[in-house]
Amino acid sequence: MKYSKKMKTKFIDIEAGKLISIIHEKDAKELGVFPLDRVELVNPKTKKKIITVVDITDSMVKQKEIGLFEDVRKRIGLKKKTEIIVTPVSPPESVDFIKKKMNGHSLNEKEIKEIVEDITSNHLSQIEASAFVSAVYMKGLNLFETIAMTKALVEGGKKLKLSKKFVVDKHSIGGINGRATMVLVPIIAANGLFIPKTSSRSITSAAGTADSMEVLTNVNLSMKKIKSITEKIGGVIAWGGGLDLAPGDDRIIAIEHPLNLDPPGQVIASVMAKKVSVGAKYLVIDIPVGQHTKVKTKEAAENMAKKFLEVSKKMGIKAEVLLTDATKPNGPAFGAALEAKHAMEILEGKIFDNLAQKSCQLAGTLFELTGKTKKGKGYEKAVELLQNRKALKKMQEIIKAQGGKIISSEKIKLSSKKIEVRANKTGKIDRIDLTVLKDIARNAGAPIDKKAGLLLKVEEDDFIRKGQIIFEIHGENQRKLDIARELAEKNNPIKLGEVIIEKIK
Amino acid sequence: MKYSKKMKTKFIDIEAGKLISIIHEKDAKELGVFPLDRVELVNPKTKKKIITVVDITDSMVKQKEIGLFEDVRKRIGLKKKTEIIVTPVSPPESVDFIKKKMNGHSLNEKEIKEIVEDITSNHLSQIEASAFVSAVYMKGLNLFETIAMTKALVEGGKKLKLSKKFVVDKHSIGGINGRATMVLVPIIAANGLFIPKTSSRSITSAAGTADSMEVLTNVNLSMKKIKSITEKIGGVIAWGGGLDLAPGDDRIIAIEHPLNLDPPGQVIASVMAKKVSVGAKYLVIDIPVGQHTKVKTKEAAENMAKKFLEVSKKMGIKAEVLLTDATKPNGPAFGAALEAKHAMEILEGKIFDNLAQKSCQLAGTLFELTGKTKKGKGYEKAVELLQNRKALKKMQEIIKAQGGKIISSEKIKLSSKKIEVRANKTGKIDRIDLTVLKDIARNAGAPIDKKAGLLLKVEEDDFIRKGQIIFEIHGENQRKLDIARELAEKNNPIKLGEVIIEKIK
Repeated sequence: MKYSKKMKTKFIDIEAGKLISIIHEKDAKELGVFPLDRVELVNPKTKKKIITVVDITDSMVKQKEIGLFEDVRKRIGLKKKTEIIVTPVSPPESVDFIKKKMNGHSLNEKEIKEIVEDITSNHLSQIEASAFVSAVYMKGLNLFETIAMTKALVEGGKKLKLSKKFVVDKHSIGGINGRATMVLVPIIAANGLFIPKTSSRSITSAAGTADSMEVLTNVNLSMKKIKSITEKIGGVIAWGGGLDLAPGDDRIIAIEHPLNLDPPGQVIASVMAKKVSVGAKYLVIDIPVGQHTKVKTKEAAENMAKKFLEVSKKMGIKAEVLLTDATKPNGPAFGAALEAKHAMEILEGKIFDNLAQKSCQLAGTLFELTGKTKKGKGYEKAVELLQNRKALKKMQEIIKAQGGKIISSEKIKLSSKKIEVRANKTGKIDRIDLTVLKDIARNAGAPIDKKAGLLLKVEEDDFIRKGQIIFEIHGENQRKLDIARELAEKNNPIKLGEVIIEKIK
Repeated sequence: MKYSKKMKTKFIDIEAGKLISIIHEKDAKELGVFPLDRVELVNPKTKKKIITVVDITDSMVKQKEIGLFEDVRKRIGLKKKTEIIVTPVSPPESVDFIKKKMNGHSLNEKEIKEIVEDITSNHLSQIEASAFVSAVYMKGLNLFETIAMTKALVEGGKKLKLSKKFVVDKHSIGGINGRATMVLVPIIAANGLFIPKTSSRSITSAAGTADSMEVLTNVNLSMKKIKSITEKIGGVIAWGGGLDLAPGDDRIIAIEHPLNLDPPGQVIASVMAKKVSVGAKYLVIDIPVGQHTKVKTKEAAENMAKKFLEVSKKMGIKAEVLLTDATKPNGPAFGAALEAKHAMEILEGKIFDNLAQKSCQLAGTLFELTGKTKKGKGYEKAVELLQNRKALKKMQEIIKAQGGKIISSEKIKLSSKKIEVRANKTGKIDRIDLTVLKDIARNAGAPIDKKAGLLLKVEEDDFIRKGQIIFEIHGENQRKLDIARELAEKNNPIKLGEVIIEKIK
């Protein structure tokens, strides 16, 4: 038996984004609750229940009143003011599991599942969820925990069920630019494999694949549409948000965001959960290694690769991991439209650069993994599908199936305004600072302004002369362009080496 | 130069308890901000600025509108709707310092100061503050960090400045019951020392010292009043909340609360900051050791004691630490009025039990630390001040000075209702479960109902007979009393040993 209290509801017309109710400090004392403790609310008529975290006020509600935000009001199914029964309750067990993890113990499958469920359903407060994410960051997830996390994320969401055998997928861990996905998905589909690719929008880069693909066609596809297009054409490139695939993952990422946390175990579980959810049986993972990407060293990448392979195996997915060089840009384009154009130019056979190579390596790996192509012949096969334009044709089918019309690189509209940035010195390019390039593109309006971005006109090791154009900044908003130019002037991303004049003896 | 946007204010008549503004998702995209990123708001007329965390909505505000909660509206000084300039800004540097701590590095004085300032002024979100508290819990604070934390907490608050030489203080780390403070403050003051004691209200126990003292007199005293009473009478027992002594500490404790975190370094800094803030020069610290208290083992207590002494030294305070036995209750009373009565009975010379002993030990330690009494004679002196009623007289002066009238134990009103709980078996008491006793008292209405609580009628090692009264449950609310009785029946706190009947040969 617990002490409870009948209280009058007061609706607060705001979505709090979390399950909170507000009570007067005198009632809090009577109930014996402190800020962030929990109370159970019961609608005596419908017997509907909900547990909320409690906030305490001396002004927002009167005594004997309980303030309910929109989220809470909806979940408990109230339409008009009434009386509800309020009872203090203990925190969910998942809080104990979080503490257990903080104390350095490993969690089992059930414990991780409960934490993920409670985070996803908003039953943990931000303080509690942050403590969990912090504990995972500081203590890591071991292999069993990573697998349990993967399963928990999958269980909380929807699943894609294709009626095909060779369902494959690809994932890149935080590269900087270049839309390999837009090159390799058509290559893969052109070889009789099925790739229901869901991609993200940009968070910190100049464009995500979903942003870039959206320049050509619609990327907001339903699960049904993703299924039917993949089964018919072999490939799709859709935005993965809003599909309810592993939604717990989005919640955890949102909590990681303010502190920019990305513990490897969580990254692996996050990636694998999406792959399991779309029903992939074969997977190639690209870990770009370089100072500007998520994974900075070869050693860290190899460690991560090993764990990816172990988790894949446990989840019944045949996987391979490629470590790729991310010290140089993947092509000259930064920004949705510029990167889309670059990918189309590769498919059209106008360019064959490091982005094309990387795309063919990734596609080729899947050809070999599935047995579609003999060992050692995958890359060749991918290149062939580029050269004979079968990949381009496939891309055009995909664009049309998704509802789009722009099927050639020339049709892609670039921004009406641009700024040409010129070298202020003569010398040999020693290093290109990708982070600064990305920041310039973002300051110019990327990723929201799809035409905004940056186009490199030089490469590493080029010898450049003072006054030569080194890159263009694109964008539709003049104020943003000016801000981007200012950044480029303040922080030149094109680093010249020491010019050594050989002494003549 | 940064991209910014003029937006119309929309006032939301709610105290959010944190600095948050709400913008439409389209504006968020234009500004390039994600949920929990930060924006600076500038009132173009007054140039007043404020930085808030941003929440993103698709319904609560319209495009080009920014929703401001009451806290934000007040801080930026707006009375009517206007246009303000909104600019995305980076998180405060303290977020980097939190990350640094999470990565296992020590923080320096400046870094800790900035974190504490930003937590206190609400410039860190709950997610960020929780990550810090979690990092401190998981990584600990070393001696330098603990000292830096102490200083940072002191600097953020007010200070008490007494014109006296022998300013002393006492602190107990999380005992269960018994109001040693109410016994030792008058003993200390009666010996010519000055003790401006600030105490807390109960969080998890049946009563805090402030709750218990409030049964006799007013405890909501201003800093000025605390100063004048201490200087005149030698002692005061006030509620420490609301005085703005080390306010950052309260914020950190509130974040620790949901996960029940109490890392030793933070506990030490928290205690020491309050002691420095009241200007104590001599300090005795009581660490009750037992299964039911904060510090469970002698080893942990000794570790903590060592750190307390080191930090005290650095802060210019002469300190001693006593480890006290908390396996048994400190007297029979649990609950504000019952514990006040018990303390008064000790001062009146009616009882001399383990609580009286402990109080005399703590007071005696301060007598020796200050040199008021010879080494080894402190305890004796304290007992003498109890026996000759000088301490009682001093307590009566204190009660009157604080505005109260109840100056004898008989005048303390106990609850009109009580339940007598009887033994259901015959046997010898092996162990008394203090946690259950405390829970019964709280279920009965403590600490809000000052008369609610529990009064033990037996002690460990007593031989009791079935049907004998073992404790009383007090309280004014019959429903709460019934709930408390139910708990007592379900979970008997009085544990009997195996009854061994000697065989007669």
